[in-house]
Amino acid sequence: MKKLPTRFGLAAVATLCLSASAAGQLSDERFRFTTAEKLDATQTSAYAGSHDAIYAYVDEHFEQHLANLQRWLRQPSVSAQNDGIHEMAEMLRGDLEELGFEETAVVPTDGHPGVWGYYDAGAERTLMVYMMYDVQPVNPEDWESHPFQANVIESDLGEILMARGATNQKGPERAFLNAIESIIAVEGTLPVNLMVLAEGEEELGSPHYGQLVEQFADRLRTADGAFFPFNSQDPAGNAALSLGVKGILYIEIESTGGDWGGPRQAEIHGSYKAIVDSPALRLVQALSSLVSKDGNTILVPGYYDAVRPPTDEEQRLINAMADTWNDEGQQASLGVRQWIDGVTGRDAIMRYLYHPTLNIDGMWSGYTDEGVKTILPHRATAKVDSRLPYGLDPDSALAMIRRHLDSEGFSDITIRKLAGYPAAQTSVDAPLVQAAIGVFNKYGQTPEISPRLAGSAPFYQFTERLGLPLVFGGFGHGSGAHAPNEYMVITPKEGSGISGLREIERAYVDLLFALASQHPIT
Amino acid sequence: MKKLPTRFGLAAVATLCLSASAAGQLSDERFRFTTAEKLDATQTSAYAGSHDAIYAYVDEHFEQHLANLQRWLRQPSVSAQNDGIHEMAEMLRGDLEELGFEETAVVPTDGHPGVWGYYDAGAERTLMVYMMYDVQPVNPEDWESHPFQANVIESDLGEILMARGATNQKGPERAFLNAIESIIAVEGTLPVNLMVLAEGEEELGSPHYGQLVEQFADRLRTADGAFFPFNSQDPAGNAALSLGVKGILYIEIESTGGDWGGPRQAEIHGSYKAIVDSPALRLVQALSSLVSKDGNTILVPGYYDAVRPPTDEEQRLINAMADTWNDEGQQASLGVRQWIDGVTGRDAIMRYLYHPTLNIDGMWSGYTDEGVKTILPHRATAKVDSRLPYGLDPDSALAMIRRHLDSEGFSDITIRKLAGYPAAQTSVDAPLVQAAIGVFNKYGQTPEISPRLAGSAPFYQFTERLGLPLVFGGFGHGSGAHAPNEYMVITPKEGSGISGLREIERAYVDLLFALASQHPIT
Repeated sequence: MKKLPTRFGLAAVATLCLSASAAGQLSDERFRFTTAEKLDATQTSAYAGSHDAIYAYVDEHFEQHLANLQRWLRQPSVSAQNDGIHEMAEMLRGDLEELGFEETAVVPTDGHPGVWGYYDAGAERTLMVYMMYDVQPVNPEDWESHPFQANVIESDLGEILMARGATNQKGPERAFLNAIESIIAVEGTLPVNLMVLAEGEEELGSPHYGQLVEQFADRLRTADGAFFPFNSQDPAGNAALSLGVKGILYIEIESTGGDWGGPRQAEIHGSYKAIVDSPALRLVQALSSLVSKDGNTILVPGYYDAVRPPTDEEQRLINAMADTWNDEGQQASLGVRQWIDGVTGRDAIMRYLYHPTLNIDGMWSGYTDEGVKTILPHRATAKVDSRLPYGLDPDSALAMIRRHLDSEGFSDITIRKLAGYPAAQTSVDAPLVQAAIGVFNKYGQTPEISPRLAGSAPFYQFTERLGLPLVFGGFGHGSGAHAPNEYMVITPKEGSGISGLREIERAYVDLLFALASQHPIT
Repeated sequence: MKKLPTRFGLAAVATLCLSASAAGQLSDERFRFTTAEKLDATQTSAYAGSHDAIYAYVDEHFEQHLANLQRWLRQPSVSAQNDGIHEMAEMLRGDLEELGFEETAVVPTDGHPGVWGYYDAGAERTLMVYMMYDVQPVNPEDWESHPFQANVIESDLGEILMARGATNQKGPERAFLNAIESIIAVEGTLPVNLMVLAEGEEELGSPHYGQLVEQFADRLRTADGAFFPFNSQDPAGNAALSLGVKGILYIEIESTGGDWGGPRQAEIHGSYKAIVDSPALRLVQALSSLVSKDGNTILVPGYYDAVRPPTDEEQRLINAMADTWNDEGQQASLGVRQWIDGVTGRDAIMRYLYHPTLNIDGMWSGYTDEGVKTILPHRATAKVDSRLPYGLDPDSALAMIRRHLDSEGFSDITIRKLAGYPAAQTSVDAPLVQAAIGVFNKYGQTPEISPRLAGSAPFYQFTERLGLPLVFGGFGHGSGAHAPNEYMVITPKEGSGISGLREIERAYVDLLFALASQHPIT
């Protein structure tokens, strides 16, 4: 399973693409499908261009291009430990300058700096490229090959590059720059203008990416789309494309003794429960008031109303997904016997992608070690996240939860917001999306297209704030993000469906030309 | 506050004895009081005997007697770490032999050994003496004086003996043996026969004390009562006597993914909440079904029915307690603004001592560290204890909780029993209790008498299994059980209400003679 580049973790890009199952219907009127049509992505015109001189350049420079990836991966850039961050920012900026970007800058923020680059090709179309140059921490002893040596090693999948950041995200990003280099080397310039805005804090939850966007917002809004280089093939070579993500609200809900009752400063002896209120039981009752007895329907008034039902386009995407959606396969891989209420097929897809969630990520109170200790804890806390489908924004979600707790008599219960951002959605009709599908189709690799992931990422910065369509995708396969032995396949085994570094770069070349040749949205 | 000798911790012996407040009435019919009379413990005849030669012996041997306490306290006997356990058992046995006990033995169990001793005075009455010779672990660096040096140091209260076990429980126990020695030295024998049955695992929850009782049960049943030497004065010198304890049921309630739904083997990505059931929310709903929305009324059918309402005797004790019960004082010391439902006075006493509880001691699931992690945990657990007033036994309590969860549809929720034993109750009319009150009265120290503690200890071994009245009490003051700087006052400051070692031993002498002179219960 791929790890998308966010601390909230976007799961199951690949798991959406399995075999057939029945489709159903959600009970909610608003979510009733108005079309049974299926969007057939094979009908999108394959990109017809061929850039043989550039492909040849890519092939001839394979060793140097691989060395570029290794150079990036051998430079640690662990944002959580501030290890190599400034060196990596400067390496990225320097590479952009060397490629011929007219503007390059390391851009200060209140946290780690960003990197800006602008390449003026004098072209009609402009692509914004999002990058992250930071990586997760490592425990080198857990790795088969040192995470910052970036060795190419043999595996079942072929020759792989093993390193922290190999697939998340330096590998595909530097592969994209290799493609840029190749185009410029052969053609003298690019078919589109490029705006690169990279951050060094993605693994920290992108706390200052908004500051970076702020500084360049007026220029970024003029772009035709935002692109995030991404290995989106699974181990069998199947590609997936998702056109959005859910938003998220992440809160801590807490009960502490206070004027309402309960111990205020510290735990007390458990026998006092006979005359003293329990913050732990109060948290339990407050949480239980938020959902139905089976835990699956959110009882917060208004919570479902704001969700925007699937558009006609999204319905057609979901109808197509349902043909290959495999409940049993996904359930087996998750260790789950059945979905909520036994739903399957299209009903399951709809719940998965269009229902808001209320989930306990963690919960703690009092004594949690082995054996017996009898206390009445003065505090109980739950970490709760709510996935927000398009239309339901985090601030209204939070206000509705607060209002509901108040109306249920839990005004003493505190809510701390730890994170929150809205959903992001891109239309399949956007020129950038059509260009991407066209490139996939050129190579006979029509992607599974999902209207969105059930997971979350702050892509609203592009789609909502800047109004740009976003594509995060590309050929290539890697795995192990946030884990030991992270890798990206460089030269796949003979007969593999996976694309190697040469093919990845080729497709990035095609994408830029394909975007340049797209008609504007009318 | 005193620490009673049990891992379940009996709190608030002293906190029951404060100033005046209003008395109320519980709503439950069965608990309606039938008498407004107050038991006046000052009316119990003060013990009239005087044993001047023995008191003189006590005074003359003060240094040796203090040295006896220090010898015991310098011998570590940490049951949790098996440190010095066998040496301490042998020291106790040897002391009993030296005192003239005819039978002494270190008695094997499946855990740490017990110690048995029988002193045949040829007397009419027999006293069983419960002892514990083990202590809690220590962190010497946290102590003002090394916990196993047993130094006498100056304090605000006078000269105190500081050591692990000083008050819990070696100090009062060896003081009791000093009294025995003094009587025998002067009189040649004791006024009552003694059966000592000591354990070395009290701090582990007395897992094998039942095995010890089993071996001597037929003989122990012939005793007139069981006695546990105990420092029961507060820092102001006020003494308290409790005639019982609640029982306890300690369980872990857990939800794990299974056939009903949810992830079975490991946490999964939080975004799956949209289609996967949450064990954490299921635990929340199961727990919430056990109690009313305010967390204070147990909704398990039958739970209150088994509780035996206060007897006439107990009502008279409670009526007397209500005169000095101080809600505000206790609330302030606990950091609690108000009791449940704003009850006060006698209503509060009744709830405290006669209501069963359902309390969350601890609760945990998923991610409990700083910040944001979005997972759907596959397991959620709560430690729950229920205090069981006399009449409600742990096995029926457990069965009722199980039945209730099943009937609420939570048959997948597991319950693990970690501990459980029933309540213990002794009548104020028992000769041993009357003897003890008489001795307190002799010194003008009429104790506050509570029908029971709200806390728990496995005293049913004496009261229910052996059918013996139990007194745990005595003069003396100490504190710091299970904490650094544990102490017992040896020579109180001039004008203090606290009794020092000499007076403690004197009162133990009196108690044995007072018991010998009591009329049998008719």
